[in-house]
Amino acid sequence: MKLHRSIIFSFVIIFFFSCNQKENLKNASAVSISNAKLPIVEPPNWWIGMENNNVQLLIHHPNISEYKPEINYNGVSIKKTTPTSKSNNYLFIDLEISKTTKAGKFDIILKKENTDDFIHTYELKSREKSAKDYKGFDSSDAIYLITPDRFTNADESNDINKNLKETTIDRTDGYQRHGGDLQGIINGVDYISDLGFTTIWPTPVLTNDMPKGSYHGYAITDYYQVDPRFGTMDDYKNLADKLRQKGMKLIMDQVANHCGLEHWWMKDLPFDDWVNNQKNYEDNIDNWTYKTNIGSNHRRTTNQDTYAAKVDRKGNNEGWFVAGMPDLNQRNPFMATYIIQNSIWWIETLGLGGIRQDTYPYPDKQFMSNWAGAIMNEYPNFSIVGEEWSYNPLLVGYWQTGANNKDGYESNLKSTMDFPMQKSIIEGINEEETWGTGLVKIYEGLANDFHYATPKDIMVFLDNHDEGRMFTALNEDATKSKMALGYMLMLPRIPQIYYGTEILMDDTANHGDHGLIRTDFPGGWKGDKTNAFTRKGLSKDQKEMQSFVKRVLNYRKNSKAIQEGKTIHFAPFMGTYFLFRVKDDETVVHIINKNDKPISIDLKRYAEVDLRGKTLKNIITGEDFVWGDDFNFTEKGSIILTTKK
Amino acid sequence: MKLHRSIIFSFVIIFFFSCNQKENLKNASAVSISNAKLPIVEPPNWWIGMENNNVQLLIHHPNISEYKPEINYNGVSIKKTTPTSKSNNYLFIDLEISKTTKAGKFDIILKKENTDDFIHTYELKSREKSAKDYKGFDSSDAIYLITPDRFTNADESNDINKNLKETTIDRTDGYQRHGGDLQGIINGVDYISDLGFTTIWPTPVLTNDMPKGSYHGYAITDYYQVDPRFGTMDDYKNLADKLRQKGMKLIMDQVANHCGLEHWWMKDLPFDDWVNNQKNYEDNIDNWTYKTNIGSNHRRTTNQDTYAAKVDRKGNNEGWFVAGMPDLNQRNPFMATYIIQNSIWWIETLGLGGIRQDTYPYPDKQFMSNWAGAIMNEYPNFSIVGEEWSYNPLLVGYWQTGANNKDGYESNLKSTMDFPMQKSIIEGINEEETWGTGLVKIYEGLANDFHYATPKDIMVFLDNHDEGRMFTALNEDATKSKMALGYMLMLPRIPQIYYGTEILMDDTANHGDHGLIRTDFPGGWKGDKTNAFTRKGLSKDQKEMQSFVKRVLNYRKNSKAIQEGKTIHFAPFMGTYFLFRVKDDETVVHIINKNDKPISIDLKRYAEVDLRGKTLKNIITGEDFVWGDDFNFTEKGSIILTTKK
Repeated sequence: MKLHRSIIFSFVIIFFFSCNQKENLKNASAVSISNAKLPIVEPPNWWIGMENNNVQLLIHHPNISEYKPEINYNGVSIKKTTPTSKSNNYLFIDLEISKTTKAGKFDIILKKENTDDFIHTYELKSREKSAKDYKGFDSSDAIYLITPDRFTNADESNDINKNLKETTIDRTDGYQRHGGDLQGIINGVDYISDLGFTTIWPTPVLTNDMPKGSYHGYAITDYYQVDPRFGTMDDYKNLADKLRQKGMKLIMDQVANHCGLEHWWMKDLPFDDWVNNQKNYEDNIDNWTYKTNIGSNHRRTTNQDTYAAKVDRKGNNEGWFVAGMPDLNQRNPFMATYIIQNSIWWIETLGLGGIRQDTYPYPDKQFMSNWAGAIMNEYPNFSIVGEEWSYNPLLVGYWQTGANNKDGYESNLKSTMDFPMQKSIIEGINEEETWGTGLVKIYEGLANDFHYATPKDIMVFLDNHDEGRMFTALNEDATKSKMALGYMLMLPRIPQIYYGTEILMDDTANHGDHGLIRTDFPGGWKGDKTNAFTRKGLSKDQKEMQSFVKRVLNYRKNSKAIQEGKTIHFAPFMGTYFLFRVKDDETVVHIINKNDKPISIDLKRYAEVDLRGKTLKNIITGEDFVWGDDFNFTEKGSIILTTKK
Repeated sequence: MKLHRSIIFSFVIIFFFSCNQKENLKNASAVSISNAKLPIVEPPNWWIGMENNNVQLLIHHPNISEYKPEINYNGVSIKKTTPTSKSNNYLFIDLEISKTTKAGKFDIILKKENTDDFIHTYELKSREKSAKDYKGFDSSDAIYLITPDRFTNADESNDINKNLKETTIDRTDGYQRHGGDLQGIINGVDYISDLGFTTIWPTPVLTNDMPKGSYHGYAITDYYQVDPRFGTMDDYKNLADKLRQKGMKLIMDQVANHCGLEHWWMKDLPFDDWVNNQKNYEDNIDNWTYKTNIGSNHRRTTNQDTYAAKVDRKGNNEGWFVAGMPDLNQRNPFMATYIIQNSIWWIETLGLGGIRQDTYPYPDKQFMSNWAGAIMNEYPNFSIVGEEWSYNPLLVGYWQTGANNKDGYESNLKSTMDFPMQKSIIEGINEEETWGTGLVKIYEGLANDFHYATPKDIMVFLDNHDEGRMFTALNEDATKSKMALGYMLMLPRIPQIYYGTEILMDDTANHGDHGLIRTDFPGGWKGDKTNAFTRKGLSKDQKEMQSFVKRVLNYRKNSKAIQEGKTIHFAPFMGTYFLFRVKDDETVVHIINKNDKPISIDLKRYAEVDLRGKTLKNIITGEDFVWGDDFNFTEKGSIILTTKK
């Protein structure tokens, strides 16, 4: 709590503006913008001592474009002022903050002839810690992904907010809000930490003032505000603080591609090109519905394809993801700066341990490179993971920094998501063993690592908030689930597990249904008969999986072999597949055996791993195993052994 | 025939040795090697003026390792003599041929104390043409792939050769010889040329003196001899000459990975490591069968996989492809030189227009790079295509020269085989149109070209001698077959068509059965009721496909747009898929329409190709088409249009 207290004062200003924004937001949607009394100034504050010594303020206030700004503060100068072309209510002010500038507050005096001056007090803060100390997640971490609305409802008082457009809550409807909140995540941190996770990635918690479907968080209507149904900025900071105290990291899920249709600026757009396909939107604004002809074509290969038609490239990058999500035009330099500054503001404000960026292949790709580059320039040890939902390693590999792309594209993106490996593991575990199916798919899937710039920086997972639940994908087979999850946790990767997968949560009733994938975590709601936190009401299989995850993750947490060791795997043989991770004296072995009947495997073939005669320990059961001539499997399953005492 | 006559004289010497080898071969298999009277000297001749001025002779003769060689010929010097470690009957002599050496014959005098000299006359020939004029196949070509035993039996007298081990012929058995021969291919050249092909690739025609299955040609038992059941060296040269006269190219199918078990050297191996797993073979030679435990594991990903176990890498590269094919050890430098010189000998002797190298990921990969490098060093404009039978573009791309491989591997290989695209096309045509299936598979498959070093140098095909026939794969649907084949012929690729695909030959009775894929070409055997050469007995669909191939290939032959133009394609839309190839004034359009019912496509979307108002010609029907507002399809099918008059 120390860090938290130390910066409460600084945040007063932020909350002041946040409240202003909320007022404004309400006004914007209720009445004409010209009636709004208080300005929006974004970013709400900035910092001294940043690598990039420029900051661009967006001021939104009636007729503000007619004003000229003045600042009298040592080290701060106005480099440029830009009134916007479409609306009179915006002013962009570019500030230069010299290296010698001291933290403090100053007035921005906005002047217009024959009008009273308009004065806004702005603050430049000192940075809490060195830029290098913003250490991002890496292969030493294990990430717990949470859909905040569905994890734990700790504060029922914030479930419904009458000032926002979606005012209902219905736990029987997978597409309505269920009441989960940030305090719920805070309450769960100890549970998550005990399981062995080191990092939490909640899906977006910023305001989504949308008339429906607001629970998922990806239709952001205010980039500087926590959705009050999830809690307050304090809650968000408390979460970050609690994690920091436990040596854990917080990943923020950000969305550069689109905002929610109810974002305040959609009622008063600053430029003709603030969002893509803006004219079509404006021409049809009165009859705008969730169906439109300007949707993205979702042809993501156009980012790489040298043969792609221009119209398709434009269709992917400039089309709206869905009709309720205006597609931000990052080629507008003010929008570009807005998004970059917003990301940096959150990193600095929450002391983030990473960003997950949504729908990576949809925004302008040169912008995305600039965006990630700007962040990495400020925080050289930070981590960003981008979502390219593709099973094609060529596409996934393209986006990772250091990829030797023929077109010269450098993403500056440290981490990508391993959809290809997810598919390989699920298929490989499920399929019958034949020449080309079964474990060989996993083996050959992992072999593709030769192509990636940095395999260990890729995030791997078996399910997430968009893909069907692992347990369902594996036909509700607990043994298979351990095979798959255990293997995944041994890989040279950053593993991510979706909340509830540790207790075999399923979406079997309708595999792939988003509402169902995001089912409430048992124990997170008052009166829940089953409670995953206390294990009350969990089945034997659920308890076993929870313990399994806990053992493996807690081992992994201190295992240099898994985190950064050499990888050696052997081609599947007689229904078995051996994977080894080796670092110095530590060798970890993961073995999958798909044979129902007892089978003995001659260990001569594995001689190069040099384990003969050594005593290994089963990290789940604690039993010893002497690596001798043969390995005798009595039944289908997987096993994890280590040479570590 | 001119070229042929001019070198008959030179070849007398070659045939002399060839006959010697044949004798030897017979002896080797019948009696002990020490009874063989005449030496094997390989390569049988060499040339002056080569880029590499070294040649290494292999002499095989009783006790020859005890002799010392002498040569008295201006410019030729012996650099090194190597008796072999395992057998007394080999001597390797390294010659250096200075740049000023003149063509001619000279004696190699082999001396041993208290023994008569052994004299062998060797010839250095003049080169027929400049190294730069050995122009390899490229995207201006179209390749006709032939299984020689199954194309045309022009000479029944050579069907059975009592001196060879497989003495039967049975056209009802897909795995026995059927009698096709080189003269049969020669007879077919006009047909093939008329169809619009520019290049012929016959599968191997060198001696396969194997007890069974010799028809396929991939178990070579003599690297310097034509299998007498296919004809003579003269026939092979006649084929090369005839093609050259027509401006066509001949590709030789070579096998560096393995020989046939009945190769003469298997009875008298020169070194302990002449073939891989040699000891196992020698220990079990008396009971050697077609089943063994030293077979390749066929885990080809081990060539790239940085995590692959050494034992698996060795298992892929050093295991025998099948038990009847000893795996050549290219890490033995004498074997390496033998294979390289053999390839060059054939290029120079036949004036080849390319080499197809079998089973590319099985031999030692560094050797393969050296092998291709040595050939490209001699013939800078030559082409080699290597077979990586994988549907993974990462693996296929790895082998192409210029691939920016992370491990630094440079293959020197100009062309690879597009198994991934073959799969995409077949699946894309067959599958129902949904978001992720159907034409989008073809579109996204082609998009992967961004990854390849040089897409236009990749060989594309829809079937070959190993994969099931296209017509069967497309459910015997002639319309789909035209869609697939027409599209393939429009790609920035080197297209290859398997003999008989132009008349919709199938393997429907047992899809994928090798014997059935390689069915006899109708009209190639006396008494055939159907004759594809004369079109007698062909069905309407067969005739139409033959005409279709002819029209497209003959257009392609002169189309710079298809051969080297820019490629633009549009994401599939409403069951249609448009591909454009553009060069200067020529635009070629290929459109697939999968709608059974009439459909109209608004052409505004295709505006960037700038065809509006232009009159195009249907290259199949010759009809004009004005590119206006819409494209109206009346039925499922494909269409190829050109702006060329």
